[in-house]
Amino acid sequence: MSWSSDVRHHFTSSWLNVLLIAAPITWWLDWQEARPLWIFIAAALSLVPAAGLIGGATDELADHAGPTLGGLLNATFGNAAELIIAIAALKAHHTAIVKASITGSIIGNLLLVYGLSCVVGGAAHGAQKFSKTSAGSATVMLFLATVALVMPAVVDLVSFGSLQAHPEEIDRLSWWTSIILLTVYGAGLVFSFRYNRDPLRAATAHGSDRRSSISAALAVLTIGTVLTTVQAEILVTALAPALKTLGITELFAGVIVVALVGNAAEHYSAVSAARANKMTLALEISVGSSAQIALVVAPVLVLLSYAFGRPMSLVFNAFEITAIGLSVLAVAMVSHDGESNWLEGLQLLGIYLILAGAFYIIPG
Amino acid sequence: MSWSSDVRHHFTSSWLNVLLIAAPITWWLDWQEARPLWIFIAAALSLVPAAGLIGGATDELADHAGPTLGGLLNATFGNAAELIIAIAALKAHHTAIVKASITGSIIGNLLLVYGLSCVVGGAAHGAQKFSKTSAGSATVMLFLATVALVMPAVVDLVSFGSLQAHPEEIDRLSWWTSIILLTVYGAGLVFSFRYNRDPLRAATAHGSDRRSSISAALAVLTIGTVLTTVQAEILVTALAPALKTLGITELFAGVIVVALVGNAAEHYSAVSAARANKMTLALEISVGSSAQIALVVAPVLVLLSYAFGRPMSLVFNAFEITAIGLSVLAVAMVSHDGESNWLEGLQLLGIYLILAGAFYIIPG
Amino acid sequence: MSWSSDVRHHFTSSWLNVLLIAAPITWWLDWQEARPLWIFIAAALSLVPAAGLIGGATDELADHAGPTLGGLLNATFGNAAELIIAIAALKAHHTAIVKASITGSIIGNLLLVYGLSCVVGGAAHGAQKFSKTSAGSATVMLFLATVALVMPAVVDLVSFGSLQAHPEEIDRLSWWTSIILLTVYGAGLVFSFRYNRDPLRAATAHGSDRRSSISAALAVLTIGTVLTTVQAEILVTALAPALKTLGITELFAGVIVVALVGNAAEHYSAVSAARANKMTLALEISVGSSAQIALVVAPVLVLLSYAFGRPMSLVFNAFEITAIGLSVLAVAMVSHDGESNWLEGLQLLGIYLILAGAFYIIPG
Repeated sequence: MSWSSDVRHHFTSSWLNVLLIAAPITWWLDWQEARPLWIFIAAALSLVPAAGLIGGATDELADHAGPTLGGLLNATFGNAAELIIAIAALKAHHTAIVKASITGSIIGNLLLVYGLSCVVGGAAHGAQKFSKTSAGSATVMLFLATVALVMPAVVDLVSFGSLQAHPEEIDRLSWWTSIILLTVYGAGLVFSFRYNRDPLRAATAHGSDRRSSISAALAVLTIGTVLTTVQAEILVTALAPALKTLGITELFAGVIVVALVGNAAEHYSAVSAARANKMTLALEISVGSSAQIALVVAPVLVLLSYAFGRPMSLVFNAFEITAIGLSVLAVAMVSHDGESNWLEGLQLLGIYLILAGAFYIIPG
Repeated sequence: MSWSSDVRHHFTSSWLNVLLIAAPITWWLDWQEARPLWIFIAAALSLVPAAGLIGGATDELADHAGPTLGGLLNATFGNAAELIIAIAALKAHHTAIVKASITGSIIGNLLLVYGLSCVVGGAAHGAQKFSKTSAGSATVMLFLATVALVMPAVVDLVSFGSLQAHPEEIDRLSWWTSIILLTVYGAGLVFSFRYNRDPLRAATAHGSDRRSSISAALAVLTIGTVLTTVQAEILVTALAPALKTLGITELFAGVIVVALVGNAAEHYSAVSAARANKMTLALEISVGSSAQIALVVAPVLVLLSYAFGRPMSLVFNAFEITAIGLSVLAVAMVSHDGESNWLEGLQLLGIYLILAGAFYIIPG
Repeated sequence: MSWSSDVRHHFTSSWLNVLLIAAPITWWLDWQEARPLWIFIAAALSLVPAAGLIGGATDELADHAGPTLGGLLNATFGNAAELIIAIAALKAHHTAIVKASITGSIIGNLLLVYGLSCVVGGAAHGAQKFSKTSAGSATVMLFLATVALVMPAVVDLVSFGSLQAHPEEIDRLSWWTSIILLTVYGAGLVFSFRYNRDPLRAATAHGSDRRSSISAALAVLTIGTVLTTVQAEILVTALAPALKTLGITELFAGVIVVALVGNAAEHYSAVSAARANKMTLALEISVGSSAQIALVVAPVLVLLSYAFGRPMSLVFNAFEITAIGLSVLAVAMVSHDGESNWLEGLQLLGIYLILAGAFYIIPG
């Protein structure tokens, strides 16, 4: 197999890559100074395959690198797309939308992606078994992240009078908490290497069985990263006017829309795995990705925000904290027995729809 | 067996039916314009067997109808008594007491009925096993309902300043949420038909093994419904002055008193089942009935309230939401291992008594 | 073996007893009118072995007394040190620090002691199994205590406007709740005698296999109690000026410092048990001790506070309640599968560090 066929393989392995056509359309619309809403939609669509390219290339590289380095690669690049979009938003002062999209990624992966996997897998195969240990590790990690979000908020609210008060103490607590989250996540990686299994994310999450060469994967990773960065910048610029046209708030856009775009690849992979009766894999992609966002992406963004001179604390708003806490408890309740079925999937989807409804009516 | 002996059987199958004597006493007291407290007590006592008649007849009909239609019958008529009492209260503007009695039915079934079942069953048989799947399905359903109650309240509290603010957005969220709850409950019924078991409510909840004819059951159902409707009207009229005499608040009356009356039949059936070492049945009656109130009775009342022109949102007060959330978590913790004993029962009763004490001291 | 060698054995069985040297140092510092900070530190250090002596002697006596009386002895004297320190603080009007140290004992035993046990045991033995029933009983007991703390606080906050309002109703609710907690804990003891196992606390918690005579144990118990009482008085007197010097709040001192001192013996015993691959014992010491503080020490202090004429309600502050609730949920999630490993231990330690960080920044 030639190098170019290797690279081409990355682009033809998923039908989602058809959406890559949205990238040149975005540029043309931007050049034509079209209405921001159209630019926003085109950029959002193009981010789906761009994120998928990063994910696929990371998996290939992880495969080549062996379990230890591979796990590290997955942990750092596995949610690179979310990270790039968030950094673009952070640089443009959209702190609220960054937190909203972190929230949306966490609850979306837990309720929508995992719920849909249970429905699709359960409809095809009846009750499906999965690893209780994987489920347990990931849900406790998520609970740790929930504690990390709840405590600064309670301190802010009770001691300083409101969630809008962000004194210096809260910033220091955010740093402290971020470092603990990253450390425990790192320990989780070590644990999984030691016991030869990744409790948080499966190695072959993004799926195809065919291996390409390292250089091809690196080339695809570069293309994906550059494309994601460019499209994220355009998306963020078109964001404010587009939301005005649509009449939706930053909160709803972040929690529901941006999160859907950034996690579309996970949706596809997890549901495919469930349909193929690989429920442990589906759980690791969805719940594991959720844990990765909470324990890696969120704290890294907090630490980076200081480097950018635009401090972002770990204080989320009351809706976001409530939604994350409830989602984590729901998945813990549903997954502790190591078995799933379509009713459990529907129950999780029901919770997602109630949360989405609430985020929709919250005034800006 | 003759038709009349069939009908009579319904009236003689439970000693609780002795309380039917309270019905004519209520009418006589009402006619004599007696003190409202006595009218209230008599009406409350008469509602216990009236609700039992509806329950028994529904079970018979469900038995005749086969699993599919029977499940549907149970879902709609299984809590008909609670629904009729609530509608009477709703028409008389007692929205607060409707929500309080919904809360009381949910926590009463979870903590008092199921707790007492564990104590009685455990004292007689030691550790008792039951179906983990039944317990899991019902607790997740209840958690879904908890999310449905928490989110509108948080939005109302944080965005609109207080739980007393009920803007139009909250009404729309209540509708949306109610429809999701009903849909997921419906899916639960389909799931149970498909797998030949009802995860939420046992077919023979109300008990006797003897089957009567369909026409006899229909006659009893009619008598029970009419009687419940009449007594509920009288109860609601006497409510306000009776509470004043007793010196208790609407909240306490709804959460503890009305809920005890409306669920007396479930108490009796569940405890009997536990004593007979049928713990799965006891769990399905108590926890299943709780889920039915949260996912069917509550949303149906929200939808009906608009038909009556007396909108009732799904925004419960902070005590009610806290009590429901804690009760659901307690039952989830106690039941996830598929085993019960009298200590677990006492622990649940302890939680009930603490909650009841709190509701008692809350000022009106 | 002679009586004196029996007594001596108590003093030589643990290396922690080296710290007894801190007792005379405390007296000398106090006599010299040294800086309160030094007196505070010396008194705190001397309390570690003093508490250990009480614990060791109680275990010996319980051993002699047989399961029934022994269980009762353990329940009453098992946390005598915490109780003595708390009473000294209560008499000196330090109500806030009493509640803080109760909170600290509960979360410290759950997260720090049990977490460290999982880490040490898991590093030495890999995955360790323990009794699911013990874990379940203790976590439900703790959840009961959580409900007991949450409800009065919600009533106080919502009905009376703030957590600082303590009307008479709240006092009555505190009494009611305290009596329920003690009753259910008592029922737990009866349950454990009946089934020949203690769900809440292992008989040989403090450890050595050698038995001494009853009179020797009684002598040691007396020495330990007198020493703890004396040192607790000195500690409490030096408290306020010492905290001022250190620049930490009463809340942080109570939750973290006093709790560490009072539970040092449990730390040592639980970690030793885990290292010896006796994970059920480690869990019973740590989680069981936590339940004992919540269900015995806290309510007894509430009841005693009225005898002292310094009423202390069960209304804890928002941070304390949140921290306790999150800790109980975390341990429930981690322990429900009857298996522990070092990653779970690290996750619990991570939660402890986040909570400790939050308590550190909360202004006084």
